Amino acid sequence: MPAAVERHVARDWIERVRGGRRERARDELAIEEPLEIRVDGRAIAVTMRTPGEDEDLAVGFLAGEGLIAGPEDVESAGPAADLAANVVEVKTTRGLRRDPAGERTFHLTSSCGVCGKAALEHVRIAAPPKPPPGATPPIDPEAIAAAPDAIRGEQDAFEHTGGMHATGLFTAATGELRVVREDVGRHNAMDKAIGAELLAGRWPLHDAFACVSGRASFELVQKASLAGLAGIVAVGAPSTLAVSLARDRGMVLCGFVRDGGFNVYASAEGVSCGQGE
Amino acid sequence: MPAAVERHVARDWIERVRGGRRERARDELAIEEPLEIRVDGRAIAVTMRTPGEDEDLAVGFLAGEGLIAGPEDVESAGPAADLAANVVEVKTTRGLRRDPAGERTFHLTSSCGVCGKAALEHVRIAAPPKPPPGATPPIDPEAIAAAPDAIRGEQDAFEHTGGMHATGLFTAATGELRVVREDVGRHNAMDKAIGAELLAGRWPLHDAFACVSGRASFELVQKASLAGLAGIVAVGAPSTLAVSLARDRGMVLCGFVRDGGFNVYASAEGVSCGQGE
Repeated sequence: MPAAVERHVARDWIERVRGGRRERARDELAIEEPLEIRVDGRAIAVTMRTPGEDEDLAVGFLAGEGLIAGPEDVESAGPAADLAANVVEVKTTRGLRRDPAGERTFHLTSSCGVCGKAALEHVRIAAPPKPPPGATPPIDPEAIAAAPDAIRGEQDAFEHTGGMHATGLFTAATGELRVVREDVGRHNAMDKAIGAELLAGRWPLHDAFACVSGRASFELVQKASLAGLAGIVAVGAPSTLAVSLARDRGMVLCGFVRDGGFNVYASAEGVSCGQGE
Repeated sequence: MPAAVERHVARDWIERVRGGRRERARDELAIEEPLEIRVDGRAIAVTMRTPGEDEDLAVGFLAGEGLIAGPEDVESAGPAADLAANVVEVKTTRGLRRDPAGERTFHLTSSCGVCGKAALEHVRIAAPPKPPPGATPPIDPEAIAAAPDAIRGEQDAFEHTGGMHATGLFTAATGELRVVREDVGRHNAMDKAIGAELLAGRWPLHDAFACVSGRASFELVQKASLAGLAGIVAVGAPSTLAVSLARDRGMVLCGFVRDGGFNVYASAEGVSCGQGE
């Protein structure tokens, strides 16, 4: 097993049941462990994740929550200074952009209730300004159609366990695959991929799109939006609120990317013309 | 469209891209909206969910977090008294079992770090006592193998959208399907199914197992454990920490339930003998 897979995968004895027969067998499992994200010495969150690329996860998580705005907010990210297990520490240059102690900021406890519009408004405030129309090239439809297979080709741990989600980031105009991250958690895989780009100084990601191995929920589109991504492309189905948010932010949102085709749910003008037009 | 589906599914115009051709088409999407869970007048959480069975979701969520211990803790559950949109209100008989204001209670910010063992210990404290060995019948392997298809047969909204997770609860000895709940969120589907049984007064669920449409994470096994379920059965793969927790709690955990077979990852003695033995 290559070292990168070794970190993500554990072997164990299990029992296989097939056609009434039972037998002991070896199996490979995706590793899941808690991680504490500490910022400037303070514990901000505990998440269950697959160990590895913890600093990408921490930084991507903070960006996706609007707690940091870009590379200029990060002084360092790495294992905790006291080397505590499963703790990653981020040092900021100027503190967090808001206090995460409260609930999510769109959580308005007024008598009118909570609604999707408040959630969209929350993202609108925290997201980076959109580039002017035409400033970034549209997404190549062939790049969209090819994205899931490109990710699968890099997804080592999935081959072993069948239990990992993945997110890949692609250059919109060329379809070049920049980074793939795997995790037992779909949100973590997205946080890790986005965090890796942030730490590399490529920010915001206006010239890129994300491809996710599962479905597109509001929360994944929120993360993509706060990273400034041009689009998000899902192998599975999107939800209504994911579509509303992508339309509100002018982001491309595609779903059911398979067998060379896909559906465009938001901002179809951001996908360049196929030969059929 | 039947009324139950109508509540879960929205129609929208999208663009289909196939072989370089683009065309406008109608599509059906799983509805996702925020829900505030209010307990005794206080907002406890906001979650993104598919509307419907909100009182099941709220009560199941509270049980899964160890905030209520059973039906005796619930005075009522339903729409907020002021009819605020997307707010569900639970009235307790004696307040919550612990204060949810802090982080998760296994979140120990000691210098040794956070670890899976602390997470298991947290569940051990909050879960209902296990029945004595032999007090509940083992799970029928044919019921396990048949569970995913039984759920699929009831899963109206998935047929329309391809975008819904589902959890079903089955009687362990007979394989009888008691309840199915669908949601865009996998945790929500589990909370709704468990909450429905709690509100019906069937608690703890020692004589039942859950079948989930996706993978088995720590968090899903935690919810199952706090409901006292005899087992959890997943169409997809389990993670290492999910397996550790199920073994620690003496719960059956099966994965990759498909084509009549499955893998048993924990507590194989809780599955009754197949004809092969």
